[in-house]
Amino acid sequence: MNKEKYFLEKYLKPCTSVNEQFPLEIGDDCAIISSSEDLLISSDNSVIDVHFPGTLDAYFIAYRALAVAASDIIAMGAYPDGYLLNITIPEPSDEWFKLFSNGINDFNDDYGTSLIGGDLTKGQLNISVTVFGKKSKKIIKRSGAEVDDNIYISNKLGLGKQGYELYNKQILDLPNQYLKPKLLSKESIKALNPFLNSAIDVSDGLLLDLSRICDQSQKGAILTIYDDVCINSIDDVVAGDDYVLLFTCATKHSEAVKKILPNAVKLGTITQEKEILVTDKEGKKMNFEKLGWDPF
Amino acid sequence: MNKEKYFLEKYLKPCTSVNEQFPLEIGDDCAIISSSEDLLISSDNSVIDVHFPGTLDAYFIAYRALAVAASDIIAMGAYPDGYLLNITIPEPSDEWFKLFSNGINDFNDDYGTSLIGGDLTKGQLNISVTVFGKKSKKIIKRSGAEVDDNIYISNKLGLGKQGYELYNKQILDLPNQYLKPKLLSKESIKALNPFLNSAIDVSDGLLLDLSRICDQSQKGAILTIYDDVCINSIDDVVAGDDYVLLFTCATKHSEAVKKILPNAVKLGTITQEKEILVTDKEGKKMNFEKLGWDPF
Repeated sequence: MNKEKYFLEKYLKPCTSVNEQFPLEIGDDCAIISSSEDLLISSDNSVIDVHFPGTLDAYFIAYRALAVAASDIIAMGAYPDGYLLNITIPEPSDEWFKLFSNGINDFNDDYGTSLIGGDLTKGQLNISVTVFGKKSKKIIKRSGAEVDDNIYISNKLGLGKQGYELYNKQILDLPNQYLKPKLLSKESIKALNPFLNSAIDVSDGLLLDLSRICDQSQKGAILTIYDDVCINSIDDVVAGDDYVLLFTCATKHSEAVKKILPNAVKLGTITQEKEILVTDKEGKKMNFEKLGWDPF
Repeated sequence: MNKEKYFLEKYLKPCTSVNEQFPLEIGDDCAIISSSEDLLISSDNSVIDVHFPGTLDAYFIAYRALAVAASDIIAMGAYPDGYLLNITIPEPSDEWFKLFSNGINDFNDDYGTSLIGGDLTKGQLNISVTVFGKKSKKIIKRSGAEVDDNIYISNKLGLGKQGYELYNKQILDLPNQYLKPKLLSKESIKALNPFLNSAIDVSDGLLLDLSRICDQSQKGAILTIYDDVCINSIDDVVAGDDYVLLFTCATKHSEAVKKILPNAVKLGTITQEKEILVTDKEGKKMNFEKLGWDPF
């Protein structure tokens, strides 16, 4: 049997599901998404030594790649239903695929998603995930921020960076937001959706991701970094890998937001003037050499 | 400006389209597919030195990666509407992206497809394409072959291999099925669909791809390799990269098939016995060391 077929059938096919929304068993040229509703769709690559270290256990490579991709659906106020998974790997082995498929299964258990298709081929380790979900009634775009909106993050910053540092010390205790990013639950994002004006997930660093909201919304922002924003140091605001939700909403919804997300932290407000002003808790302006992560 | 944003905005954004089916301009975490019908979806990676040579012009890298992926939609009796495109590249340059985006635009002009989103990141050159199209009324699966079905290919075999050999001699005259694979037109696949029992595209080699139809259909096949099957040599039946359609249909539809696809070649028939028997034109059994391509 050829190797591609061997690994697909032994490890990946058992991770797939057939149900009303995904009626076709894998083994054809395409998968089918049965849907009478509009779909949100997003595709993300995780590359060895760029998005994860070469030493990382294949279980976490899988879980992390899926979480990073799924986070983009949540960032638009919806929830992931399924995904296609393309694996590029130099030399597949049973050991690697056993761990990797455990990561897939655990992710699917945690988020109720389905693997419905993909591709396996040779090359530098690179995991490409195309994830989709039913469009929610209200689509949350980056461009929806309004002047005087409150700016929130769904949780403190720095857990991703801390998780990576712990991994580097070979401390693998869970939870670890770098190894197994925890995303907002379906219930939370569903409850939050009506109150949101704009949102993005913090993947590349708070300031860079906020600049994307401000750019698309043609607005600016004023932020104050109180002690409750970062778990470790001010570097957490540009570190990325947190996969918390960064969102804006009208002041009148503050209480509702706090009720849905008790750990949410208010950072500041959206302004008309198109610049992002960051101050420390004493009101002193803070400057940053870089706003966040750039792969190049 | 960060490099990722620079290349996305300068070269890839102008290749995207906004229309009724794809209502969201790029710049958000997801794209939207507006559809009240079921979707066929498929994802394929093209990796440097595995699927294309490192010296290949970026124009052809793009065109070829898109055609290879789109071919999977046609293989299920439907037609591609749009795609997401993930580019992993070690060091992006204006020169490379100019050529690459020309390849995208020409593919979209030739097939009426839309680029609606994707990802750009760092790593070994690897182009991941997730393509989708509206499900046709009748889905053509690999599993649909019936005993006594005629087996056809939509065109002779070997044009992919010949195109690659010409490229290696730096003969770049078009048409070249390796550099710019020509797929079935929307009209042809639409007209052909009602007559098909099973289909697959010949990407990895005729015998390997036929074995996939036979496996899924729980059938076998008997083939005769007459002079009109291969353009150069018998190796063409295991070479792959042809992106012709391999399909089966009832004998009564032979005339209809020939009318829609005048270049189609009949190879043999589907049998109850689960083996693939290949004979030459004198009826002598032919054996092959390998059935087709395996990336590993």
